[in-house]
Amino acid sequence: MGHEFAGRVLEAPRDSSLVPGQPVMVDPRLYCSSCASCQKGLTHGCEKWGFLGLSGGGGGLSEVVAVDTARLHPLPESVDFSVAALLEPLAVAWHAIKRAEITDLARAGPVLVVGGGPVGVAVVYVLKAWGASQIWVTEPSPTRRERLRGITNVVFDPAVDDVVAECRRQSQGLGVTAAFDCAGSQRGMDSAMASLCFQGKYINIAVPGEALILPNGIMLLREINMTSSFSYTDEDFQETVAAFVDGKLHGVETIVTSRIKLQDVVHQGFEQMVENRDQQLKIVVSPKL
Amino acid sequence: MGHEFAGRVLEAPRDSSLVPGQPVMVDPRLYCSSCASCQKGLTHGCEKWGFLGLSGGGGGLSEVVAVDTARLHPLPESVDFSVAALLEPLAVAWHAIKRAEITDLARAGPVLVVGGGPVGVAVVYVLKAWGASQIWVTEPSPTRRERLRGITNVVFDPAVDDVVAECRRQSQGLGVTAAFDCAGSQRGMDSAMASLCFQGKYINIAVPGEALILPNGIMLLREINMTSSFSYTDEDFQETVAAFVDGKLHGVETIVTSRIKLQDVVHQGFEQMVENRDQQLKIVVSPKL
Repeated sequence: MGHEFAGRVLEAPRDSSLVPGQPVMVDPRLYCSSCASCQKGLTHGCEKWGFLGLSGGGGGLSEVVAVDTARLHPLPESVDFSVAALLEPLAVAWHAIKRAEITDLARAGPVLVVGGGPVGVAVVYVLKAWGASQIWVTEPSPTRRERLRGITNVVFDPAVDDVVAECRRQSQGLGVTAAFDCAGSQRGMDSAMASLCFQGKYINIAVPGEALILPNGIMLLREINMTSSFSYTDEDFQETVAAFVDGKLHGVETIVTSRIKLQDVVHQGFEQMVENRDQQLKIVVSPKL
Repeated sequence: MGHEFAGRVLEAPRDSSLVPGQPVMVDPRLYCSSCASCQKGLTHGCEKWGFLGLSGGGGGLSEVVAVDTARLHPLPESVDFSVAALLEPLAVAWHAIKRAEITDLARAGPVLVVGGGPVGVAVVYVLKAWGASQIWVTEPSPTRRERLRGITNVVFDPAVDDVVAECRRQSQGLGVTAAFDCAGSQRGMDSAMASLCFQGKYINIAVPGEALILPNGIMLLREINMTSSFSYTDEDFQETVAAFVDGKLHGVETIVTSRIKLQDVVHQGFEQMVENRDQQLKIVVSPKL
């Protein structure tokens, strides 16, 4: 189990450039390399896609795991492994922002992030790394909103704020350029759609917990573009690791809200994520604590 | 009433290049020219949008109508006015196909058109003008399917054919490159989404008659791009008229399924469209018959 993990090389094939002891981040995707999507470099669209740690083959909670060397990304010796493991959700965010195809985020106008959970916060950090000038977040949990206030300056409480009216007001009536849906709720979708500018971009990254009804009238009259973003490609992962190593993702360590021992994973890990979901973003499990 | 209309110039301002008697097609859109969308050339996104004949100001059923000369497009003297009036819905289709942003329709693989009503048939003709090599249509009405068989070679009956399976089979398992939704029904949307290739494009042109539930799982795992297309821009209208005048939209006269006199508009026009919807695409109303 565990598909977001980093570690040290134990053994490497002779023909690889990897050496035992070297810190590496694992791109956990499994793909066939031969289907039509893989052949086009769209490996995240592989017909036989899977993830190490989710689809079998061992994962981050294993003592030792066999990984294709092509899926390993060397990290500097000084790396903090509990932060390095965040590179997987950060690659998800990286891919979503590329999927949005916004030419110049610094000049593109405000973007709205719906939901301040782990994916939402990862999106905020990647948007910052890409130079986005105005990042607004809407999040119903007070704990999560509090955390976000340290990262970005506009945080809405959908129970109190009129998100649509605020987005319009703060964008001089134009609406936001893009909305990244990291929540997958009807309420979040409706307010994000209504907050977009003409030909605005709605990027869905969430796996919704409920059936969502399309706000057709708004979509049509505003000519909204809706993009879905799933996982990431080889290139996205490489670029995310490079940005991390170059210090362009500074601050991401705040996504780690707990560090626990492997033997405590049930009570302090899984049960926490179910019972105290709002208090946590990512709980790092370590065999070394 | 009537926002799809062509006619002859009765009087023209001295500083225009128009002359009395000249045949012209009317771009019936009303826009302010000063809002943010208009300033960007996105006149179809005008904050004060409207249509001559729908929003007041007289329309195609008026004896005489005052139109901004910038909205008039000269036609050749030999034009058939009952066909020229089709340029409005053809511009809607033209815009939708541009919105799809498919680089080379001749090589892009098959496209699916959902619904063979007037907009669906207009989309088929414009796709042909753009060189699309494989245009597949799904339409439940036998009359409309029969008409489509003369225009394109693959026509599905969703009551009998497994549209998704057929789209996959006939595209060697890849799925269709794009789907143009001219129906706006849950069934049409579900089958079109499931028929798309990875990163396929779903273009919505319809005003749905029912609330539509997003097929999220498919959208996410296939990374579907959904584009909404509303009306058209100045440029789209100009290009559509030019294509028509150049003979690139040959065959479009089949969209006209009836020609009636102005005094018969209620019984042979409006009532026909309500009671015998499937038998008709466009009924041309003429004061000259």
